[in-house]
Amino acid sequence: MNTKRQQHNPKPPTAADFLIASRQCELMNLQYFLQMGKVVQSISNLVHGLQRERGASNVFLGSGGEKFADEREAMIDESDRLAELFEQALAEVQEALTAHPVSSHLLNHLANALHGLQQLPALRSQVAAQAVSAAEATEAYGGRIQALITVVFEAADTAVDPSLAGLLVAMVHLMNGKEFCGQERAVGSAGFSSGSFETALSKRMTHLVEAQERCFEVFVSFADDDSRALWQTLRSHERETEIERLRQLGCSVGRYKTLDSGLADRWFALMSERMDELKKVEDAVEGSFHTRCVERFAEARNSLAHQETLIASLDEQNPPAQPLLVLCDSGDDARSGEAWKSEGVGQQFGRSIFDLVQEQTRRLQQMTDELQSAKEALEDRRTQEKAVLLLMEHRKIDNNEAHRVLRKLAMDQGKKLPEVARALVSMADVLK
Amino acid sequence: MNTKRQQHNPKPPTAADFLIASRQCELMNLQYFLQMGKVVQSISNLVHGLQRERGASNVFLGSGGEKFADEREAMIDESDRLAELFEQALAEVQEALTAHPVSSHLLNHLANALHGLQQLPALRSQVAAQAVSAAEATEAYGGRIQALITVVFEAADTAVDPSLAGLLVAMVHLMNGKEFCGQERAVGSAGFSSGSFETALSKRMTHLVEAQERCFEVFVSFADDDSRALWQTLRSHERETEIERLRQLGCSVGRYKTLDSGLADRWFALMSERMDELKKVEDAVEGSFHTRCVERFAEARNSLAHQETLIASLDEQNPPAQPLLVLCDSGDDARSGEAWKSEGVGQQFGRSIFDLVQEQTRRLQQMTDELQSAKEALEDRRTQEKAVLLLMEHRKIDNNEAHRVLRKLAMDQGKKLPEVARALVSMADVLK
Repeated sequence: MNTKRQQHNPKPPTAADFLIASRQCELMNLQYFLQMGKVVQSISNLVHGLQRERGASNVFLGSGGEKFADEREAMIDESDRLAELFEQALAEVQEALTAHPVSSHLLNHLANALHGLQQLPALRSQVAAQAVSAAEATEAYGGRIQALITVVFEAADTAVDPSLAGLLVAMVHLMNGKEFCGQERAVGSAGFSSGSFETALSKRMTHLVEAQERCFEVFVSFADDDSRALWQTLRSHERETEIERLRQLGCSVGRYKTLDSGLADRWFALMSERMDELKKVEDAVEGSFHTRCVERFAEARNSLAHQETLIASLDEQNPPAQPLLVLCDSGDDARSGEAWKSEGVGQQFGRSIFDLVQEQTRRLQQMTDELQSAKEALEDRRTQEKAVLLLMEHRKIDNNEAHRVLRKLAMDQGKKLPEVARALVSMADVLK
Repeated sequence: MNTKRQQHNPKPPTAADFLIASRQCELMNLQYFLQMGKVVQSISNLVHGLQRERGASNVFLGSGGEKFADEREAMIDESDRLAELFEQALAEVQEALTAHPVSSHLLNHLANALHGLQQLPALRSQVAAQAVSAAEATEAYGGRIQALITVVFEAADTAVDPSLAGLLVAMVHLMNGKEFCGQERAVGSAGFSSGSFETALSKRMTHLVEAQERCFEVFVSFADDDSRALWQTLRSHERETEIERLRQLGCSVGRYKTLDSGLADRWFALMSERMDELKKVEDAVEGSFHTRCVERFAEARNSLAHQETLIASLDEQNPPAQPLLVLCDSGDDARSGEAWKSEGVGQQFGRSIFDLVQEQTRRLQQMTDELQSAKEALEDRRTQEKAVLLLMEHRKIDNNEAHRVLRKLAMDQGKKLPEVARALVSMADVLK
């Protein structure tokens, strides 16, 4: 990639310099996502490992240390291996991330995620010593996992290419949905193994089910066809029907009479299988993301090379002495175009440079427009999280309750959730 | 600034690395605006020069080449001098702009602005040859000027610090208002010197007056106190009353009976004085912007240095062998904090690292929230421009007419202009 014109330059910068720089800026963003893709993949793998470790830890704690002791050890080793791969992927992208920092938010959330990982040994020793309840362990693992998913969220927010942004939005919502699924597995296991679902437990379960569905809706609307197809196969599997049946059983029957605690193992097995299938969908999204990155990067590099060649040829034909672009028709005053024709030189060169600038303006405008829906999906998510926090603060209620209040508001007003959340957040100062 | 930890690093990156990188990312953005400030200033100066040159050119053309011939030559020299200073400012920031590209949009609009400048000689030779009408010359100059103002607009869109973003929003709306003022000077001069304002002319004038006011409203809501005070002095000057009187005269009386063409000179003088005063307000905004940049940069550099020292001291106390952050309380599971206390080491260090990450999260969140109003002001402007283009397309009407339709829509629906514009843009596909 010819970057000579970008170096310290005795002669004043020309329109061509900045036109090329504008293209290079896009190229650098794509290059950065070629690397970030690896980080996202390693996060997806690590999150899956931690979810499996959490599941085993819960069974271990729930069984008073009798079940899954060895499985848990194996999964811890696996998580550590995946954490190492994540840190390797980070080390590879670190220089790019810090030399051309894209987002303070992203970098800070990476700090937060690494910070969380370094606490795992302490958490594990507590689990081994059975010094935490399954619920507490679930929450602790959940915090670490959420910190990792947030990194993907922030990465999505730095995407400039609409199709890449869309795939990352699909990815982060799939990961969030899968994490809610993991929490539902834990809640369900607790209920079934204790043989009953008291109100709090079944409320929590209902919330997790609804939260999952909302995430998956967004995933579906942004996913590529292959991933969406894979997702539909997953959903039409008979396993899903059985999961639905057990959910109903737990939340209805389980509130009144005792359930066969043998269901716990079945539930755990079904939900674990579901999460493994969800992971395959994540891999499919990552695959499409990588392919798309490579395609877009090649396209961008070619069109940059094309422009550099064209502009270089123009430079030769118009020595720096005589200004290059005097010969362009700005288009917004046709008659000056006429005047230049009368000078009778370099028409098509002037035209083509001018066209390049205009074309780039159109391209960028179109990308911004296409980017909007992805940005909105991210913004909606942020706003809903804000709204939930607000409700928790002002009404002194827990997360589930806050989500339910928000859903009820939306239902009563016949509005969409993000809309109600926005209204609520905009009222925050009044509420205070 | 210690950037060792950002270089290629054998040992895996730590939370501390990315925490510092997150701060450095903010610092780089502030450094970039220390340079961009000079570009903005040189643009403000150049635009003022071009507006004066345009004014002189119009009088020259209007008087059949009798008036302002010498003044025009002098102003052309001055514009060329200012254009050179603009290109120097650009050359200084060019490496930063292209090595750490912040925005493809900004770079492309710089290309567009430079492209426009390089067309000036052709435009001037047409004016000298009286080969263009005053209206055509006004439009041609207007295109070049708008391209320059758009660069400031895009720069504002890349600001991360809320107070800097706000000042740039104030700046760009002030510049836009001043440019509408310049166009009104041209339209008024045409009317008064011809002794009459036919409908099209007075409609155009009304639009320009309203457009100015809207820009100045936004300016006032984002300007710093000093600039706002200066602005209020400007508005309370008797000149403004006389301008208002002439506006009325032109748009009312001027439509029926012939006016004393001597008013043309008076009008031109008054509006020119007004624009010189507006330029002083621009300088005030630039002054505050620069001061604010320096302050924020110093603050950010100090807090970065502070964190680096603290973290370095932590590194010494906790050799890499034993993981640094195991000792942190993540806060989201208090009991693990307990567990670590029982290990009885490095509490406050762990705490302080954790606090730094949390503090940074809060800071960034707060900045994002504060940034919103500035971003919305920019977005509103974009949306309104889109809405106007839509109306021009679909109704086959000119820019003035489109603006009037938009204003009428807002009035009839009792809504704000940006709101109606958004609704219109969101209906675009339906309209097509």
